[in-house]
Amino acid sequence: MAKADLEATYRAYIAVLNGRRFDKLVKYVHDRITYNDEPMTRQQYESLLAGDVRAIPDLVFQIRTLVVQRQEVACRLWFECTPQHEFLGIEPTGASIAFAEHVFYEFENDKIKRICSLIDRGAVEKQLRRT
Amino acid sequence: MAKADLEATYRAYIAVLNGRRFDKLVKYVHDRITYNDEPMTRQQYESLLAGDVRAIPDLVFQIRTLVVQRQEVACRLWFECTPQHEFLGIEPTGASIAFAEHVFYEFENDKIKRICSLIDRGAVEKQLRRT
Repeated sequence: MAKADLEATYRAYIAVLNGRRFDKLVKYVHDRITYNDEPMTRQQYESLLAGDVRAIPDLVFQIRTLVVQRQEVACRLWFECTPQHEFLGIEPTGASIAFAEHVFYEFENDKIKRICSLIDRGAVEKQLRRT
Repeated sequence: MAKADLEATYRAYIAVLNGRRFDKLVKYVHDRITYNDEPMTRQQYESLLAGDVRAIPDLVFQIRTLVVQRQEVACRLWFECTPQHEFLGIEPTGASIAFAEHVFYEFENDKIKRICSLIDRGAVEKQLRRT
């Protein structure tokens, strides 16, 4: 797949997340993936995402920096949101927070096969504990 | 600069860090940069790096995933090392640790202008507290 196509595919995947159309994940994510080096089924990955949006109903994935090469996508995602339930093990306080996620995806035949993600947990913690 | 050149430049920059040739940073880093959205001089950035290698003398920057597009470089770095002094505010225990850093660089005229980095502090903490 050409680079422009992979970028378009990734943007469509993010639109699916923001539209909460998790039924469409099958188009973008393999049946079996690894997430931070742990094996995971697409169903488990979907549960993870569903849990995040239950905890944070106004969660929007904003692409800040997107770097695409061969079958690799690296994205700096940005979130501005108000957690309603526990997120990353941290209780909500009603505060709105902003934080980054830096994530690397390896695609195989146009679908995500491997995800390595780091979330700025320190920023989340700091902003929720401050209030 | 062509993509292959930027990749080569980035790999040379990492070799400079691993060789502790901080006097050569001027070739790769602008006089003034932003580091996680904070303005920083190259001297301050050099001090930051020097502090890390003082705390962890066996710190080696291993490139695990490298994604290059236009003037952007995204890298998943991997470290296997034994902190000797406080690192990220965490005291050493003599334990060897392994952790990732996900970092995005924006280049301008072949030199780093902007760095956005997330380090897996949770992994560092967990491995040092375990012992």
